Amino acid sequence: MRMVDIIQKKREGQALSTQEISWMIDSYTSGAVPDYQMSAWAMAVYFRGMTTAETADLTMAMVASGQTIDLTTIPGVKVDKHSTGGVGDKVTLILAPLVASFGVPVAKMSGRGLGHTGGTLDKLESIHGFEIEQSEAEFIKQVTEAGLAVIGQSDDLVKADKLLYALRDVTATVDIIPLIASSIMSKKIAAGSDAILLDVTVGSGAFMKNIDDARLLARTMVDLGNAVGRKTIAVITDMSQPLGATIGNRLEIAESLAVLKGEGSSELQYFIAELAQLMLGLADVDKSLDEILTHLSNGAALDKFKAMVTAQGGDMAELLASPVHKTQFSKVVRSQKSGFVTSFDALSAGLLAMRAGAGRAVKSDLLDMDAGIKIFKKIGDAVQEDEPLFEIFYNKPDFDVDKESQDLLDKISISDEKIKIKEILEIIK
Amino acid sequence: MRMVDIIQKKREGQALSTQEISWMIDSYTSGAVPDYQMSAWAMAVYFRGMTTAETADLTMAMVASGQTIDLTTIPGVKVDKHSTGGVGDKVTLILAPLVASFGVPVAKMSGRGLGHTGGTLDKLESIHGFEIEQSEAEFIKQVTEAGLAVIGQSDDLVKADKLLYALRDVTATVDIIPLIASSIMSKKIAAGSDAILLDVTVGSGAFMKNIDDARLLARTMVDLGNAVGRKTIAVITDMSQPLGATIGNRLEIAESLAVLKGEGSSELQYFIAELAQLMLGLADVDKSLDEILTHLSNGAALDKFKAMVTAQGGDMAELLASPVHKTQFSKVVRSQKSGFVTSFDALSAGLLAMRAGAGRAVKSDLLDMDAGIKIFKKIGDAVQEDEPLFEIFYNKPDFDVDKESQDLLDKISISDEKIKIKEILEIIK
Repeated sequence: MRMVDIIQKKREGQALSTQEISWMIDSYTSGAVPDYQMSAWAMAVYFRGMTTAETADLTMAMVASGQTIDLTTIPGVKVDKHSTGGVGDKVTLILAPLVASFGVPVAKMSGRGLGHTGGTLDKLESIHGFEIEQSEAEFIKQVTEAGLAVIGQSDDLVKADKLLYALRDVTATVDIIPLIASSIMSKKIAAGSDAILLDVTVGSGAFMKNIDDARLLARTMVDLGNAVGRKTIAVITDMSQPLGATIGNRLEIAESLAVLKGEGSSELQYFIAELAQLMLGLADVDKSLDEILTHLSNGAALDKFKAMVTAQGGDMAELLASPVHKTQFSKVVRSQKSGFVTSFDALSAGLLAMRAGAGRAVKSDLLDMDAGIKIFKKIGDAVQEDEPLFEIFYNKPDFDVDKESQDLLDKISISDEKIKIKEILEIIK
Repeated sequence: MRMVDIIQKKREGQALSTQEISWMIDSYTSGAVPDYQMSAWAMAVYFRGMTTAETADLTMAMVASGQTIDLTTIPGVKVDKHSTGGVGDKVTLILAPLVASFGVPVAKMSGRGLGHTGGTLDKLESIHGFEIEQSEAEFIKQVTEAGLAVIGQSDDLVKADKLLYALRDVTATVDIIPLIASSIMSKKIAAGSDAILLDVTVGSGAFMKNIDDARLLARTMVDLGNAVGRKTIAVITDMSQPLGATIGNRLEIAESLAVLKGEGSSELQYFIAELAQLMLGLADVDKSLDEILTHLSNGAALDKFKAMVTAQGGDMAELLASPVHKTQFSKVVRSQKSGFVTSFDALSAGLLAMRAGAGRAVKSDLLDMDAGIKIFKKIGDAVQEDEPLFEIFYNKPDFDVDKESQDLLDKISISDEKIKIKEILEIIK
């Protein structure tokens, strides 16, 4: 086979065969097919798309390009969860222990944050001593014994995706649904779980900006997962405003801890309970929302969280004693008029938190674990003139907080009309 | 500027600015923009195209990427000619001395053959001693003194095109009209002539397979040339059958020599006289076809050919004494029925000549200067059963001539209807 013929075939809008895709990914991973052919192919895919069969073939070829994790020694149906990213997205921190509290093992590999989106690994690392690197054996041991583990992805998993993702990033070929789907799903499949809940976020703070793209990505991934024998469900969730009431690593850990204690907003509790119900269902464990919410109020989910933190070396006592660390500076931003909040732009909020130190503009940036934003009013809430909308926490002496927060303030709308946003917009099975 | 933004902009179908294109080509030539970004951009151009202004900007940026030849010290309007390639295409060998015989200087840089298409340089090198490499000073001196020179392109000319052409070849981005146009025209512009005649071939033996593509390429190049101050005309010429009666390096030199002596087919003489009329017109020299044909019959064009060969070290005496060198083997292929020839596939003929040794399948192949094909019957000619259609000349003992010639024989149609093909299909000004 010749890569130039494969590029040409895709350019002409023809579907590639299983053999062609497998040869291409093998050759790319080995270095026999260079980046300049792969990027031309990716651009052709932007214009011509891929069939469901091609996307499944690509995904499985990517899985085969690296190590795969074998979780079969862990009893029961192992479930995994993936979010396409958001602002204030602390779902995994609460959902994983909640599901594990019903005896369903959660073996999860997570990622770091970049730009306006946060990463679960960064949040967990704000817990003193928490270790996100584990060998496969340690990972399996912890899931078997503690019922859950959340660790960083091994560098040996899905080698082709690492190469291809870096290439797509610099060749304007990132936003291509079949390539996004195969990138996500190859990692989930290689990580070994039997069933996968996908949280496809949509809105200004998400990668998918509109519901049609989100729906197509969700449908592509669900079909893909089921085609290769992994039970897969996707939820499309709102990311037009930040999730919950905090943005920032330690702030989000503290908020998650509150929810795990049965505190925090009922909306967030209810949202995560709905996700837990779907995830448990994937493991054939049927629970009512009331039963699930009980595990938040009776400490069962919190116990699983504690077990995980302790197993991964985190200082649970320190965390419980002082969940939030005070920053050197803070600033309360207030409403300039009365009414109901009708928008609270997630992208602006995520970027503000990033600039305050909670996130990375580039991969090499260091994080301030304590920096971030507390949100006092969300969409649908009533607000009076001069009432606090949000508060910024930071440690940078030269941070011009008024100037920096103006963009978010401009993108919080207050009007006479009370509107309501649903967290889960659609479920794709 | 960032190349990823330029790729994205083109991907979205927007036109790039002069500055963006100039930055891109400069950066690509210097190595700051890697191949993998350039190939993604080229694939986006395949789907989105380029405006006339973009194509002109690209061309001039490519010209600026290397050396340019300054022909201003040569008196008069310097004219150049370029063919997009064909089978048996010996036009330059006759046209250049013919035009020069009217006192119009011809300063031409030519290329080599690949695949089924022949190259003027290869043909000239079949003349014993002929030297195609010259310094710029030698080139200018010869054009000034002899009135014409045909040499190989300097490696320092249009550096970006060399890089981009090699990249396009392996990334399925060769057949993109604005990229073809800018590749051809950048070399012609850098080579310094004031006016350019473009021969855009169309048909099975040409790069352009249909008249619409040929017309678009011709129009793009003519607009481009005129936009940057070079008087440019294009002719669209038929390449559904081979040009003239020979394919092969020394065979074509011999045929050219015959035409330069006023011998050879009147169709070929007339065709080249028409091209000469256009080329002379570009230099504001108006001549009738009769005047031009006289320079073929009275030896004026031949004298210019001799002057060029001698100036470039070629052995004119040897060439005149034995224009054709006998090969070890030859085979006459005969018609299986009577009628009129209605097709004589140029591609099959070119590939057969290549396999016989006259051409290269890959760049590193060595040529047999004496191998090739003589054609006895062309489209429109009457043929009797068992009459010779063509003859193959070769030196390879293991060449299975019957098997090898079958494809061409299959693609020569004989029917009751006499059809006529015009050599010049259209003139684009």
